[in-house]
Amino acid sequence: VNELAAGNLEAAEFVRELKTIVGSAQVFAGDAIDPRYRRDLLGKFPGRPGYVVRPASVEEVAAVMRLATASGLPVTPLGGRSGTVGGTRGVDGGIILSLERMNSIREVDVSAHTMTVEAGVVLQAAQEAAEAQKLLLPLDLGARGSATIGGAIATNAGGNRVLRWGMMRDMVLGVEAVLADGSIVRSLGKVLKDNAGYDWKQLMIGSEGTLGVVTAAVLRLRPLPTTSQTALLALDSFDKMPDLLRRLEGRFAGTLSSFEAMWGPFYEFVSEAQLIRRPRPMRTGHPFYVLIETLGAQAERDRSLFEEVLAEAIENDLIADAVIAGSERERINLWAVREELREAFRSLHPVVGFDISMTLADMPGVVTEVEANLPSVLKNPIALFYGHAGDGNLHIVVSLKDGGAGAEHAVELVVYSAVQRVGGSVAAEHGIGRERLEFIGYTRSPEELALMRRIKSALDPLNILNPGVLIPVK
Amino acid sequence: VNELAAGNLEAAEFVRELKTIVGSAQVFAGDAIDPRYRRDLLGKFPGRPGYVVRPASVEEVAAVMRLATASGLPVTPLGGRSGTVGGTRGVDGGIILSLERMNSIREVDVSAHTMTVEAGVVLQAAQEAAEAQKLLLPLDLGARGSATIGGAIATNAGGNRVLRWGMMRDMVLGVEAVLADGSIVRSLGKVLKDNAGYDWKQLMIGSEGTLGVVTAAVLRLRPLPTTSQTALLALDSFDKMPDLLRRLEGRFAGTLSSFEAMWGPFYEFVSEAQLIRRPRPMRTGHPFYVLIETLGAQAERDRSLFEEVLAEAIENDLIADAVIAGSERERINLWAVREELREAFRSLHPVVGFDISMTLADMPGVVTEVEANLPSVLKNPIALFYGHAGDGNLHIVVSLKDGGAGAEHAVELVVYSAVQRVGGSVAAEHGIGRERLEFIGYTRSPEELALMRRIKSALDPLNILNPGVLIPVK
Repeated sequence: VNELAAGNLEAAEFVRELKTIVGSAQVFAGDAIDPRYRRDLLGKFPGRPGYVVRPASVEEVAAVMRLATASGLPVTPLGGRSGTVGGTRGVDGGIILSLERMNSIREVDVSAHTMTVEAGVVLQAAQEAAEAQKLLLPLDLGARGSATIGGAIATNAGGNRVLRWGMMRDMVLGVEAVLADGSIVRSLGKVLKDNAGYDWKQLMIGSEGTLGVVTAAVLRLRPLPTTSQTALLALDSFDKMPDLLRRLEGRFAGTLSSFEAMWGPFYEFVSEAQLIRRPRPMRTGHPFYVLIETLGAQAERDRSLFEEVLAEAIENDLIADAVIAGSERERINLWAVREELREAFRSLHPVVGFDISMTLADMPGVVTEVEANLPSVLKNPIALFYGHAGDGNLHIVVSLKDGGAGAEHAVELVVYSAVQRVGGSVAAEHGIGRERLEFIGYTRSPEELALMRRIKSALDPLNILNPGVLIPVK
Repeated sequence: VNELAAGNLEAAEFVRELKTIVGSAQVFAGDAIDPRYRRDLLGKFPGRPGYVVRPASVEEVAAVMRLATASGLPVTPLGGRSGTVGGTRGVDGGIILSLERMNSIREVDVSAHTMTVEAGVVLQAAQEAAEAQKLLLPLDLGARGSATIGGAIATNAGGNRVLRWGMMRDMVLGVEAVLADGSIVRSLGKVLKDNAGYDWKQLMIGSEGTLGVVTAAVLRLRPLPTTSQTALLALDSFDKMPDLLRRLEGRFAGTLSSFEAMWGPFYEFVSEAQLIRRPRPMRTGHPFYVLIETLGAQAERDRSLFEEVLAEAIENDLIADAVIAGSERERINLWAVREELREAFRSLHPVVGFDISMTLADMPGVVTEVEANLPSVLKNPIALFYGHAGDGNLHIVVSLKDGGAGAEHAVELVVYSAVQRVGGSVAAEHGIGRERLEFIGYTRSPEELALMRRIKSALDPLNILNPGVLIPVK
């Protein structure tokens, strides 16, 4: 591994210095690096880090960053490895800075409705710590068992309840971060409102580890809802989707928490694959399905309102059919169609996935365009469409089984060109990482990219924080 | 005015160039400047601008900024002049860039629930345009009739419904802005989710015109609530306030929109001053009052739930009394105690006002400390306490009638020292402006201020955008 040595420091000396900072058990170099640090969730971005460092405190993170600055060696912060776009692959020979040991839940403040957590806390652990105090950390997503709070902040994670409570950005009240030069910037107050100067934490949120290393955060919690109403709806036309969404948002006032759309072929494919274990909740054959959920605190009132509003929607011909979950088991069964996708998609592998956004009105046009253009790049294409429609967020999964060498890239061009035409985003949730560098310019202007570069140079003039991610080098 | 000439350009030549950009009717210099551009809302920060320019398009704004960059003359963007901290006073001899002519509501997109507006649109006009389409722009504050969207973005405005819908930041989906060097950065998409690169618009929001001139924005709208439930509650102890808030938030699920606290003396003083025109809604003598409101869509259900929850709260001894508004007239009467303050405070003038934040649990300690220390700086001090308690936002108004020359500053020291001890914010809503430059360091660390300066230099290296505001010069 010596050929990976940094700047003018020898590798062995560099390792010694790292060990002085974090202890000798927490530094790995070259062949001693565990394979899990070389591999991401999908196995698409195998990395060759020179060093893995696992600090236990913000001071240790700061010392590592000072050393990195002195040596010029790049640093990639690592959370739960649940990213899908290569954002934590790191640079060959560089440093992977894993926050996994900073996993303490420092406080749940029941009166203030906040929790103070370190970056390495796994989302599910944070959710459970909140629930133990009858509070809700609203962020929820499929990777809850591995994704960390630090990663969720670095990628501004979304998920199933954005419609009601927003993205990670909307839950972060305070942040502690280490800048590229090793300075510690801390704002761990619990206040909802702070207009004293620039809200610099906004820069850290969603910057994919390129502007600073988030080490801790204060998160806003909500009262834990005590009842849920869940239903699967069928629509006979996409035109009715925006109307339905707005009607439900209005009638359910603040309680509509999820509005998840599924195109007919997606529903048929997934529910078919799950038939071994689960009954199909509704017949196939409808062109569109929507899974909705309200979360509230009045079991009877919420139920009667839910039934009344859905009955109205049927009467007004907004929906063609509805199945309401009558028990927690039925609720889980409804959600499975939308959530338990890894197993269901297995027969499609290899696949390429997308998380793009646009207005709901633009969505059918994008789907039509993608479906029309895929046959020119794939034989017998299988593309399934679904997503957090309430947020304008469309997911697409395309099987590359019958594709050749350039198939994935060709499919990306088809999808991102369609997004570009309607002015949406090529990265609604997962960020740019390494995979989408080529496409950020499809929905961001040259002036926006120039501004991003100015921000990057101001905070990380040596370009040592996660280089190669988020911003294309000119 | 010639002595105010910029850099190496003569004033007359400078005026000619400005007129070439915006037309001769839209440039004023020296004595020809209308007094309204020299005066802010409270008359505390009389300015002496050298030039007032009123562009009508983003291209004109860009050309003005290029000229300012070339001449080195400072530019202060101006909205509705409703700020209270001197943020738009401008620099003597500098340029006031008024956005008042950029006042077009470009679009209300009913399906996407967005509106696209220019910076100079008055908040109330935007609210009404949304309401005409049965949509809600949730931002609401006393200055709605004069405050502009651009100003609300530049100051990240708060107001009466932050508890439910957040601050201005949470409603801004897209921004168009002109940077110091005249480049136009535009991201006027309507999508809720965009993780493609840095969310640079977050830097513009709340930066008080020091990082860019916001010229237009896309705002997120909500379904217009059709019913409201409003009540004035009395509490016999502050200790019950956090519990009450959390109980109401939980039981009312997503519909609790306002939770406004008033200390007994505030309630007594204001309701007394309003007796000529309004009946007092509840007897005086309780130590605390809270005005609450839920906004929903189910008149009967909401009403019965509202009554049930308040009855429970009385039963559980959380509240001592409750008056529920039985009509729109009664609702307006309840709100008047909290909203119609200018007239009520007249007998206290001159006053100094504060908008500070902290956790609800820290609030009584801060109030006690301020009350204990005021007599050392003011004879017979009158201080009234109230605020958006649901957001941890405390307002204080202190009469300076019996104070001498240094009284205002002495009172500021008392209040901000108390905030500093609990780690809140010295500027929950109105920003730092010029008035609070001295105090930003009370709740922001040197590392945070250093980071803010780095951001400022990166975006405005010549320091021509609203210098003297927000960041103290070293």
